[in-house]
Amino acid sequence: MTKRPLDILDQVLNKQPVIVSLKGGRELRGILQGYDVHMNLVLDKAEEVSGTDVSRVGTLIVRGDNVIYISPSVEER
Amino acid sequence: MTKRPLDILDQVLNKQPVIVSLKGGRELRGILQGYDVHMNLVLDKAEEVSGTDVSRVGTLIVRGDNVIYISPSVEER
Amino acid sequence: MTKRPLDILDQVLNKQPVIVSLKGGRELRGILQGYDVHMNLVLDKAEEVSGTDVSRVGTLIVRGDNVIYISPSVEER
Amino acid sequence: MTKRPLDILDQVLNKQPVIVSLKGGRELRGILQGYDVHMNLVLDKAEEVSGTDVSRVGTLIVRGDNVIYISPSVEER
Amino acid sequence: MTKRPLDILDQVLNKQPVIVSLKGGRELRGILQGYDVHMNLVLDKAEEVSGTDVSRVGTLIVRGDNVIYISPSVEER
Amino acid sequence: MTKRPLDILDQVLNKQPVIVSLKGGRELRGILQGYDVHMNLVLDKAEEVSGTDVSRVGTLIVRGDNVIYISPSVEER
Amino acid sequence: MTKRPLDILDQVLNKQPVIVSLKGGRELRGILQGYDVHMNLVLDKAEEVSGTDVSRVGTLIVRGDNVIYISPSVEER
Repeated sequence: MTKRPLDILDQVLNKQPVIVSLKGGRELRGILQGYDVHMNLVLDKAEEVSGTDVSRVGTLIVRGDNVIYISPSVEER
Repeated sequence: MTKRPLDILDQVLNKQPVIVSLKGGRELRGILQGYDVHMNLVLDKAEEVSGTDVSRVGTLIVRGDNVIYISPSVEER
Repeated sequence: MTKRPLDILDQVLNKQPVIVSLKGGRELRGILQGYDVHMNLVLDKAEEVSGTDVSRVGTLIVRGDNVIYISPSVEER
Repeated sequence: MTKRPLDILDQVLNKQPVIVSLKGGRELRGILQGYDVHMNLVLDKAEEVSGTDVSRVGTLIVRGDNVIYISPSVEER
Repeated sequence: MTKRPLDILDQVLNKQPVIVSLKGGRELRGILQGYDVHMNLVLDKAEEVSGTDVSRVGTLIVRGDNVIYISPSVEER
Repeated sequence: MTKRPLDILDQVLNKQPVIVSLKGGRELRGILQGYDVHMNLVLDKAEEVSGTDVSRVGTLIVRGDNVIYISPSVEER
Repeated sequence: MTKRPLDILDQVLNKQPVIVSLKGGRELRGILQGYDVHMNLVLDKAEEVSGTDVSRVGTLIVRGDNVIYISPSVEER
């Protein structure tokens, strides 16, 4: 069965935290609360991760063009 | 409940200051007075933050393609 | 009241000088004489500022994709 | 016979792992579960490869503008 | 009176030389013979200027996305 | 006689190998099996060339925005 | 008389060699055989020039977004 990339995001809305890898080496984690066709994202309870450093940044609206990938599988890592 | 990224911005218009993280490492703070679909932003009482350095820059019209993320949650940090 | 980013520019047309911050670290000042939806700008009596160095460059047509932000509030700084 | 680039992707959906080369030097492997016209991809059982280092990253939604090429021919290498 | 950025270019067509500042630090001078909505430009009797070095390059068709700004005011400098 | 750039590609489909020069210095060779208006390409029997180093990479779907140029003239070199 | 940038290219089709300056410092020369609205180009009898080094590369299809400028005036230099 084929899955459209943005449809996958529907399945993780308001569930477990996702990892968002950004251009420039930044990594975010948070609950995905929303998205649109540009991959603009709303992350709740977001954390910015750099190495072992984690800083809480609350709610974030991320502009989609910064995204490399989104991983809905935090718990598998 | 799903939230569209740009709708979140509606909730913080003219309220508490937001943090805007820009490509190239700049960070802005200010009251969000307006935005459009490109994430072009109007920030009032804006400050440019670099490390512990804060400089007041009044009102700013920010071109959306510079934005990495917008955080409406200054007070949570 | 919500303000659309480009509408703010209307309010400063042909008035006090604005500051235009460009990608790559350049900064311009000048009287805003016109703009379009791409944030292409016409600046009159423009100056290019780098540190304490100011060079007069007359009228400029700036291509919008170079703009980081426009600050209509020179006098507040 | 001419093949349209995106049609080739149809032939490897849910089959052998593909290699995805990303801008910035990253390489991903995984089962292609979906894609769209922007080359946004869904990779299942994905691995991030850097040199001889392989880290499992579960399911990934990759934003298409990061892609250099997709190789459906892991086993040929 | 408001001026649209591209209309300004009309006023200098086939008149005094303009300065074109390009991304990457290049600067061109020449008579503007034409342009389009992308800011693609035709420059006649063009010169490429780098520091005090001036090399004549004849007619140039410049792709608009390289342009930072166009200055119609050579003689004012 | 004028030739449209993408029409040239039709003439080399499934014939001699083409060279594809990519941004970032990579060079690919392979049989062109397909393309679309974005210059997305399908290369068969592809090789990645770096200096005198050649590695076989099978079939590749190349995202068009990485392409600098395509040379259908391997044998002339 | 105003000239549209792409119309100028019509005048040099299949005539004297043109110089094409590319982003990243590459320079190409060749007979312009075709182009389209994106400034995708077909160059015949193309040469890649780097300093005093000239290498023949036959026919090239150049993706337009790499172009800085096209100079139809080789012989004037």
